[in-house]
Amino acid sequence: MQKIQNITLIGAGNVATNLAYLFYNNGFKILQIYSKHIESTKKISKLIKTSATDKINNISNKSDLYIISVSDNSYSEILNKLKINKNSFIVHTSGSININIFTKKYNNYGVFYPLQTFTKNKLIDFKNIPICIEANTTENQEILKKFASNFSDNINIINSEQRKTIHLSAVFASNFTNHMLDIAYRINEKNNINPNILLPLINETIKKTTENHPKNNQTGPAIRNDNKIISEHIDMLNKIFTSKYLENIPKLYNFVSQSIKDLNKK
Amino acid sequence: MQKIQNITLIGAGNVATNLAYLFYNNGFKILQIYSKHIESTKKISKLIKTSATDKINNISNKSDLYIISVSDNSYSEILNKLKINKNSFIVHTSGSININIFTKKYNNYGVFYPLQTFTKNKLIDFKNIPICIEANTTENQEILKKFASNFSDNINIINSEQRKTIHLSAVFASNFTNHMLDIAYRINEKNNINPNILLPLINETIKKTTENHPKNNQTGPAIRNDNKIISEHIDMLNKIFTSKYLENIPKLYNFVSQSIKDLNKK
Repeated sequence: MQKIQNITLIGAGNVATNLAYLFYNNGFKILQIYSKHIESTKKISKLIKTSATDKINNISNKSDLYIISVSDNSYSEILNKLKINKNSFIVHTSGSININIFTKKYNNYGVFYPLQTFTKNKLIDFKNIPICIEANTTENQEILKKFASNFSDNINIINSEQRKTIHLSAVFASNFTNHMLDIAYRINEKNNINPNILLPLINETIKKTTENHPKNNQTGPAIRNDNKIISEHIDMLNKIFTSKYLENIPKLYNFVSQSIKDLNKK
Repeated sequence: MQKIQNITLIGAGNVATNLAYLFYNNGFKILQIYSKHIESTKKISKLIKTSATDKINNISNKSDLYIISVSDNSYSEILNKLKINKNSFIVHTSGSININIFTKKYNNYGVFYPLQTFTKNKLIDFKNIPICIEANTTENQEILKKFASNFSDNINIINSEQRKTIHLSAVFASNFTNHMLDIAYRINEKNNINPNILLPLINETIKKTTENHPKNNQTGPAIRNDNKIISEHIDMLNKIFTSKYLENIPKLYNFVSQSIKDLNKK
C-alpha cells in the first residue's frame, strides 16, 4: 500500500491552514501550498518550511497526496486549471461536494472531511475530531484511513450523501448555535451586563447534550407555552435592537419559539 | 444579622426540586414543601425528610426563608392565597418577575435567581452557577448573599431590570441553542446517522465561546454568503421534514441564515 509522506495543499483558508500545521506538526512534508492570495499563503509557508505559490501551473507532480481545501464555489475553477498527473491521489475537504467531481480527470481520489469549525487564529487538537473519509476504491480508502489515523482516533467511512447530511446538521449544531450565543452576548452588552455571566449556563446546556438527546433537555418559555413571557421578550428585543439590520431579531425570537412548540408537539 | 436555617419551599417544579436537594444536602432544614401536585411533592419530601402539603393555609410561620418557585403565571395566585406573617423573609426564583410583587404584602423580601437550566431528573453542581440576588434592603441583601454563598462562588447583585435582560439572553443562549442541537440530531437520525458524530464539533463551538466573543467565531455558509449551499440545504430540509408540524424548519434555516448575514453586516 502506498504510504503518504509528501503533501501538496491547494488553498489557504481556515481548514487548509489548520491542516497545514497539523501535517507539519506530525512529521509530514508539505511540498507546496497554492493559493491565489500569495501573501496569506507566505505567512503559513514560512512557519511550516515550505514554498508558496499563486501559479497553479507551478504545482509539481511529486506529491503523494493533493488536498484541495477551498470555498465550495471555487472547486470547479481549480479543477479546470489544475494540471497534475491523472494518477495522482487527490482529495477535497468539503462537507457538501460530491466525490464524483474527480471522476473525469483522476484515477485515485477521495474526500478527507474533518467535522469541525475552524478559524485561522486557533489551531485545533485533532485527536477526537471525526474525520469523514470517502475514496473511489477500497485500497484508496485504506490509504486515507491510515493517513487520517495519524491525527484522529475518530475515523468514519461516510459516503457523499451522508456527508451532505452531516454537514447540514453541523450548520444547526455549530453555526446556528453560535449565532444564538452571539445574540445573547449582544443583549447583555447593550444593557451593560458582562455576558460571561452566561458561561455556566451555556456549558451546562451542552453538557446535557453529551448525556441525553437534546429533545429531552428543552426548557424555557416556548416549551412551557408561556406566551406572556414570549411577548414581553419580543417587546424587549424591539427596544434593544433598533438598527436597520437588526430589526428582524424580535421576529427571529418568535420564529424559533414557534419552532420549539412545533417540534415538541406530540 | 438573621441566619437562615429553616426553609419552606413553595413549588415542586424543576427549579424547586433542584433547590430542595441543594438545601438539604448542605445541611439546611426544609420545614415544608407546598405544591398543588401533592404526588410529585411527596416523592421529594420523603427523600429530604420533610412534609409535603397541597393546602396553602397549612404553611407554617416558623421558617427563616420562604422560597416561591413556581411557573411565572402562578405567582399572583400563590401570593393572593399565601397567609404568612408580613415580617417573613420571602423570595422568588424567577428571571422575569419584578421584586415589587412582594411590596404590598411583605416587609422582607427579595429574589434568589440561579441562572441555570434545570430539569428534575438531573441535579446540578451549584459551585459555579451565577446566583442573582436582589433584596428590598441592604441588610436583607446581605442575608441572602451570605445564604447563597453556601452553595455558589458566583453571587451577583442584580436588579429586576437587569435580571429580565439576563433571562432574555438566557433564552437565546440555552433554550434556542438547545433547539438548534435538537434539529441537528433529528436530521442525522432521519438519515440513519448516529448524531453523536456532532459532539466534538458542538464542544469546540462552545469552547470557543469561553475564549472569544461569539461574533468572532461565526463560520458556515451564511457568513460566507454561500447562497448555493444555503439553497441546497433548504431543499434537503424540505425532503427531511415533511410532517405538518415541521414544515417550517426549512424556513427557520433561511431565517437564521439571513439573521447571521444581518448581524455581521458592517
